[in-house]
Formats: sequence, C-alpha cells, structure tokens
Amino acid sequence: TFVRDRHDHALSVLRWLALLVPMAAAVGSLCAAFLWSLDIATRTRFAHPWLLFLLPVGGFAVGLLYHLFGRSVEGGNNLIVEQVHEPGGGVPLRMAPLIFLGTVVTHLFGGSAGREGTAVQLGGSLASAFATMFRLDAESTRIILMAGIAAGFGAVFGTPLAGAVFALEVLAVGRVEYRALVPVLIAAIVGDWTCHQWGIHHGLYHIDYLQRAVGPIAVDPVLLLEAGVAGVAFGLVGLLFSELSHGFGDFVKRHVRFGPLRPFLGGLAVIALVYLLGTRDYLGLGVWAPDASTPTIAGFFAPGPDYWSWALKLLFTVVTLGTGFKGGEVTPLFFIGAALGHALGTLFGAPVDLFAGLGFVAVFAGAANTPLACTIMGIELFGATHAVYIAVACFVAYLCSGHSGIYLSQQIAVPKH
Amino acid sequence: TFVRDRHDHALSVLRWLALLVPMAAAVGSLCAAFLWSLDIATRTRFAHPWLLFLLPVGGFAVGLLYHLFGRSVEGGNNLIVEQVHEPGGGVPLRMAPLIFLGTVVTHLFGGSAGREGTAVQLGGSLASAFATMFRLDAESTRIILMAGIAAGFGAVFGTPLAGAVFALEVLAVGRVEYRALVPVLIAAIVGDWTCHQWGIHHGLYHIDYLQRAVGPIAVDPVLLLEAGVAGVAFGLVGLLFSELSHGFGDFVKRHVRFGPLRPFLGGLAVIALVYLLGTRDYLGLGVWAPDASTPTIAGFFAPGPDYWSWALKLLFTVVTLGTGFKGGEVTPLFFIGAALGHALGTLFGAPVDLFAGLGFVAVFAGAANTPLACTIMGIELFGATHAVYIAVACFVAYLCSGHSGIYLSQQIAVPKH
Repeated sequence: TFVRDRHDHALSVLRWLALLVPMAAAVGSLCAAFLWSLDIATRTRFAHPWLLFLLPVGGFAVGLLYHLFGRSVEGGNNLIVEQVHEPGGGVPLRMAPLIFLGTVVTHLFGGSAGREGTAVQLGGSLASAFATMFRLDAESTRIILMAGIAAGFGAVFGTPLAGAVFALEVLAVGRVEYRALVPVLIAAIVGDWTCHQWGIHHGLYHIDYLQRAVGPIAVDPVLLLEAGVAGVAFGLVGLLFSELSHGFGDFVKRHVRFGPLRPFLGGLAVIALVYLLGTRDYLGLGVWAPDASTPTIAGFFAPGPDYWSWALKLLFTVVTLGTGFKGGEVTPLFFIGAALGHALGTLFGAPVDLFAGLGFVAVFAGAANTPLACTIMGIELFGATHAVYIAVACFVAYLCSGHSGIYLSQQIAVPKH
Repeated sequence: TFVRDRHDHALSVLRWLALLVPMAAAVGSLCAAFLWSLDIATRTRFAHPWLLFLLPVGGFAVGLLYHLFGRSVEGGNNLIVEQVHEPGGGVPLRMAPLIFLGTVVTHLFGGSAGREGTAVQLGGSLASAFATMFRLDAESTRIILMAGIAAGFGAVFGTPLAGAVFALEVLAVGRVEYRALVPVLIAAIVGDWTCHQWGIHHGLYHIDYLQRAVGPIAVDPVLLLEAGVAGVAFGLVGLLFSELSHGFGDFVKRHVRFGPLRPFLGGLAVIALVYLLGTRDYLGLGVWAPDASTPTIAGFFAPGPDYWSWALKLLFTVVTLGTGFKGGEVTPLFFIGAALGHALGTLFGAPVDLFAGLGFVAVFAGAANTPLACTIMGIELFGATHAVYIAVACFVAYLCSGHSGIYLSQQIAVPKH
C-alpha cells in the first residue's frame, strides 16, 4: 500500500502540475502586460498633465462599463475570497478584462490606487476559468483559486514566497491552513518567473544602514523597541485606512445611487484636492516620478523632512477607491507605510531606510491581516538581515489593526487579543 | 470606547511584557548554560575516546534518575504540546534539571542526539513554573507555554523568527493559529538575545555558489525542479526517521520492561555499531569535530564524495533515542538532511552547498511537520537569496512525510493531500 499510495500521489501531483503551470504562466503573462500598461499609463500621465481633468470622465466610462457588463464581478477581491470559502458560481472570466482596463484608466488619469487587487483578480478569474474548463470539484476549485491569487500576487510584486503565503493567509483572520501549501507555492513561483521572462523588472529597495557592519549582526534592543512602537502606529494607520475606506465607500453608495456617477464625482473630488492642497504628488501609484523631488516609495528610504505624506496619500486613496475607481489598495498602503516609517524613523533619530521598509510592509500587514506574508515579503524585498525588526513591526501592526481589514469577506477564525 | 479599548490593551501588553521578558531571559540563560555544557561535553568526549565505554552506564544512571524522580516528565516535548492543547497539571519544573543533565550525559559518552528537545523542555518547564507562580488562567497558560517553546527553540539555534513560528506551527499538522503571535515572537527574540549576551555563538553556514553573481538573482527552473525532487527525498527520509523512531522505540519498550535497562542496552548497541561499522563519525551532535575529515554538518556544505552518511547517522540516532537516551531529534535531522542534500547535490551535479542547506531544513520540516518554521529558519541561516528553493524543498518535504511526525501529541488539523 505504501508504494501504491506513493504512485497515486505521484500521478495526482503530475495532474496538478499540468493544471497549475499553464494557469500560473497565463496569470504571470497577464500581470506582465498589466505592469507594462501601467508603466505606459503613468509615463503618459506625467507627460500630459491635462489628463487629470479627464479623470471624472474616465471614471464614469469605467463605471458605466461595470454597470452594464460587470455587475457580477463588482465584488472584486472579495468575490474571489468568497468563492474560496464556498465554491459556487465561480468567478466570471470577464472580471479579467474589466479590471485590467479599469485599473489602467485609473492610473492614466491620475487616481490614487494600487495594482495588487487587479493582479489578484486577474489570477482569480483565470483560475476559475480553468476550474470550469476542467470540471474541477469544489475542493480542487478552492485550491486552484488560491493558486490563482498566489500567482497574481507573486507576479505583480516579484515576491513569490509572499504571494504563496498571502493566498493562504488572506482567507481568514488569525488562522493559516495548509490545504493548498504546495499548489500556491508552485503557482506563485511560475507566475513570478513568467512575469520576469517578459522583461518586467520590479523596483528595488535598499536598507543600507548596516552596510559597513562586519560579521553576524546582533539585534539592537533600542531599535527593536522603536520597531515595536512604530508597529503600533503602522497597525493603527492600517485600521484607519480600512475604516475610512469602508465608511466613506458606504457613505458614497448611500447617497449616490447610480453607480457610474460615483467615480465621476470622485474624479472631481480628486481634482479639487489637487488644487486645494496644491500638489499632484499623491496621484497614481507613487512608485515612480520623473522629478526626484516628488515623494515616491523609494524616496522615503533616503533621509529628508517629510512628516505628512502618509496622511495625504491616505486621503487621496480613500477618495479614489471609495468612489469606485478600480485598482488595488496595497501599493498605496506601501506608500503610506513607507512615508509613515520615514517620518517615525526621523522622529526617533533611527535609520530612516529601515523604518521606511518596516512601514512599507507593516501597514499592509495590519490592513490586510496578513502578518506572515508581509514579514516574508519584507525579507524578499529587503533581505534577511532585518528579519527580526520586520517581524516585530508586522506582528505588532497585525495585533493593533482590529478585525475588519480591507478584505471584508475575510472570515474571523481566531480573534485578536 | 476606542480610547478605553486601547488603554486596556496597552495595560495588558505591559503585563504580558513583564511576564514574558523575564521568562524568556531565564530560558535564554539556561540555553546558554546548556550549549556551553554541551560544548565541554563534546570536547571532553573527543579528548577521551574511552568515555564511549561508559555510555551504557551513563544511560542506566539517567534512566534510573528518571525512573525514580522523573516519571511525570518522561513525556518530554509531547507533554508540553499536550499541555498547550489542554492545560491541566502543567509541566513539572523538575523537567528542566533532568533533561539538562540527561542530555549532557548522552553527549559526554557519545550517544547520537540533538539539543532542541532539551531547549524546548527547558523553555516549557520554566514557562509552566511562571504560569503557576502568577496563577494564570488556562488561556494565558497556553500562551506562555508556547512562548516558552519559542524562547527555547529560538535561543538554542540562534533563529528567533523560526523559533516563534515553530511554536505556533508544531501544535497541529496543517494549521497555524495566531493566538500567541506576538508573545511567541517577543519570547523568541529575548531568549535568543539573552543567549547571545552570555557569549554563545552559533555555527555559521554559507551557501556561496552565487557569490560572484551581480544584481537581482533569477530563479533557475532546472535547479528548482531538482529542489522539488530532493524535497520528495527529504520528506520520505523524514518519514522514515519518524516511523523507525516510533517503531523501534515501541519495540524496545515492549521487550524491555525496566526503563533504566533500555539505555543500558542502547549504549551497548551504539558501541557495537561503532565497532561493526568501524567509525565513530556518527556519535554526538555532529556539528563539530577536531579532525576536519570527520563528517560534520558544516562539512557537507563543501564538495566531496559522501553518499551514505545520512543513513548511518539515522541508524545511530534511532538506536540512541529509541532506547531512551535524552536529547533532541533536530540536530541529527539537520545532519541527516545536510548529508542527504550533499549526496543529492553531487548526484545532480548541482551546487552541494545549496542542497546541503536545503536538506538541513527540509528533512526537519518533514519530520516535524513544520514547513513554514523551517523555511524561515533556512532564510535566517542561509539568507534570503535562496528563499524560493528553501520553500520548495520544505513544503514538498512536508507534503511527502505522512501524518505522524516526531511529535506524537501533534494534532492533525488539516490532512495532507
């Protein structure tokens, strides 16, 4: 029986590989196309500043598209998480083109949004299509949906291990189950690898304050304590982001019944904010700008006086996403976190690159309730040297961010405290 | 209420800190004393080879000690895991001196065993004493016991993050719960830090085959596939180790009723093995030897023809631990894994340092059902560059190692495949 078990096991592994590898390669390719389009959209926006004035129109057009053809996929990430919990109608394939187009429009005209939501939705809808095509049972459908999430997340940020753990961790608050451990890992690696093969490069961030240190590096208790205190702030800001997003989103939905009108008004509000605050710095992704003086995520890794970028980015993002623009929450959360970490590092007189890195992953850890995935992401992005600080910031942020994160269909398995 | 909640929360955090930090510092100090004693014992054994002939007597003496005073703590690690699942009688404090002494005796006279079991038992018994002293309720007792495990594991291997995740992951197969997320992290960091403050240094392992590579390193698909295949082997050897340990241990218990007699016979068996096989290479921990030609864990990171050390170490360890000698399983599993990885790397024509590192963590991942802790341990020991290969090896090994790992009181939460 031992040999027969292994034989059956090996066959099932081969079947799964034949399913997962093409799926993840397709997701990785789509993500590459998406990242490439985002890059073009962002450069175009910087080259033609007047595009901002089309934001209301662009939002209205995408809103109308969803109103006419996308009712079934408006749930976005939440729909995918729901389908993992209880496979039912599946995730319609039309989610992929709609979210791709919708997100590029947001970024072309200057909404403040991210990209992981889009990548996860590309992955989830493709995976669901595979599940339908190969008539998978409920359990297998759950697994391939999780693999789709992992492939999208791993590819879009170039962090395969974090993508795999994210797909396991995002489903419920306080619990990780290993049902799909190997499938999500394979999908995330293949997705990321494929995306790289298309020539996509991810931003590199460096935490260099220890560069001249020699030998094994001991943990500094003072820095550790500061990382813990910063973790509390990261968690509370993650909580603030979730609560404001949900609250503002509900408010808008209650008062503006006609869907496409919401992003139209949202676009007007973003334009108003730009002129009220006199800055365009918080539009778009925030990872690249032609002018080095514009605050970007990478910029927060260098010293400089910037105490409030995190709050402004939060404001722009809540207005953009709360009025129904398409895009993810995570890159803005990276921005908010890096900016807040930069500010706290400056206040503490601690290395700002370290604290920008901690905020980068920890605000997201708090807002998404995914402390382990974010710790691993921090290690993948910044190296293992800082692992202990990263874990402290992410775990503490998780503890302080409350129960209703950015993904409302997340179940609460083990309450905090 | 928000402010009052935060206030209560902050108070509870301070109370926990006041409990966890001294507990973990005590565990870290004990671990430092333990590692220092092990070092002395190992050096003494190499300096006086005749000590091996006292192994049966030493085993008998420790067996008698446990027979007379240690019935309540013979469960060892399993007792601690049980007490986390269902806090009841607690873990008697006498576990600490007994396991400390018992393990040093094993290593002084040349049994093949490890040290993590000892560290975990030191941590668990101290934590339980704190729980009794401060009259903690059942839920808090569970948390401080997990923190004790984390502190011991983190300190003994110098891998705090792996220690924290290990304490969460070891309780059940296939599920991690975040009940004690921050407490285990604090305990592991404090335990490790304290151990370092006593001047303890951990072995450093290097995976250098990429040393001359420049820029971000892409994953190599061939190497990845080889890591997956090796992962299957690592998992099956982990399974073999668990099954042989349990089977041989039960066999000995059935046939030798008087406890102290078992390690006496075991000692004779180890001596017989030494003369039958004509080698003393597989005695003790296997991390250090005065002669560079002796196989050690670090030695497997360098090229060389060694295909069977893994099997021999497995044999010596099963005989030593199965007959009731005290000590852990993990360092032998590191040895077995590194040796097997070395052999597979040589067979594949792949970098042996990488494969030794993969085996080091992955056989343990399979045998203990802790893939995430082992992945993180691999990253802490070998750096983030190899994270993807490490994860593949550990996750695949986990999938292939069956359900009954080395810790029998582990619950099965989510079955594999």
